[in-house]
Amino acid sequence: MASEERPEIDPLLRNRWSTRLFDPTHELADAELGRLLEAARWSPSAGNSQPWAFLVARRGDAAHQTFVTTLSRGNVSWVPQASAVLVSLYRAGDDEDPALTFSDYAQYDLGQSVAHLTVQAESMGLAVHQFAGFNHDDVASMFSVPPAFKVTTGIAIGRWADPAVIAADEGLVEREQRPRVRKEIGEFVFAGEFGVPIELA
Amino acid sequence: MASEERPEIDPLLRNRWSTRLFDPTHELADAELGRLLEAARWSPSAGNSQPWAFLVARRGDAAHQTFVTTLSRGNVSWVPQASAVLVSLYRAGDDEDPALTFSDYAQYDLGQSVAHLTVQAESMGLAVHQFAGFNHDDVASMFSVPPAFKVTTGIAIGRWADPAVIAADEGLVEREQRPRVRKEIGEFVFAGEFGVPIELA
Repeated sequence: MASEERPEIDPLLRNRWSTRLFDPTHELADAELGRLLEAARWSPSAGNSQPWAFLVARRGDAAHQTFVTTLSRGNVSWVPQASAVLVSLYRAGDDEDPALTFSDYAQYDLGQSVAHLTVQAESMGLAVHQFAGFNHDDVASMFSVPPAFKVTTGIAIGRWADPAVIAADEGLVEREQRPRVRKEIGEFVFAGEFGVPIELA
Repeated sequence: MASEERPEIDPLLRNRWSTRLFDPTHELADAELGRLLEAARWSPSAGNSQPWAFLVARRGDAAHQTFVTTLSRGNVSWVPQASAVLVSLYRAGDDEDPALTFSDYAQYDLGQSVAHLTVQAESMGLAVHQFAGFNHDDVASMFSVPPAFKVTTGIAIGRWADPAVIAADEGLVEREQRPRVRKEIGEFVFAGEFGVPIELA
């Protein structure tokens, strides 16, 4: 189906894009960070359990200098340019007994919370790119994460930069220009029975 | 902090609310369902793995009649009034070997996808209330869910109804009026080290 025939969705969702081109001069103000976190805060969760936590690192501060040492090779080229990186965590277990499951939906609810933050960023003209390529064990150790919490994703936040202006790496520009692709609705939405594609008029 | 001092967030996030008061006469059109699913579809995921799937049940159809038999006692009073219920699933394992983890972020990414759907619903004037209180094993069996996929949440979707008009159950109205509460930012956002509350100007 051609893109112009796709069902219309809200511009905040339609325009969201996990860029690798962050403006290395942009700084995230406290008030902006506060609004992003407020969005994450009001996300729904199972029984209002709010199983999420975040570590904040802003370009130039000590936490950021520590965090970037844990990045995978593929992420070193773009993550440090973002204005801030949050590390997302969810409460997997109990403080006394980390093996005791806190909530069957903790990772799911963390994902929701980060999605709310992402929508808020889009609403503020900021870009977000989540990534998993960093050393999770090192981060847990360096930031004294207790055993009940699981380090999950990195969340790069900043202002999109025109690659001509920031003289971006060619590989990054090429990746930026790749078409966005997704499965068709009928491949993951089923009616009556798993595997039977839904048919919509 | 009083609510009027809270950081401002986008109205789509600020006004979202997991209602229990659905209009039992509202029907979700195919085009509306298509837009909700399109929003879920364009959500980001680890390596674009798109580990989500959805079963669709609409009030009055056979899937809905089957699904409502699995509801917990607490959810029987309000879920059936919603115009549609989606069951969310994530790919946990490989089709050949369901014990082989598909993605460490599958549940997280499903949560993101449902959050995007929720924001889209808000944008269309519809309400969403996610719930976990139903018999997951029965749903897996009744809808022939393969072992590689995990039944996760129910997603009630519909139009909010004024309790005076729909003559809603008193208990539901009381729950609807409870104040929304969340942890303070400093309880889950840390700077430098886990447990050290961030301070924002």
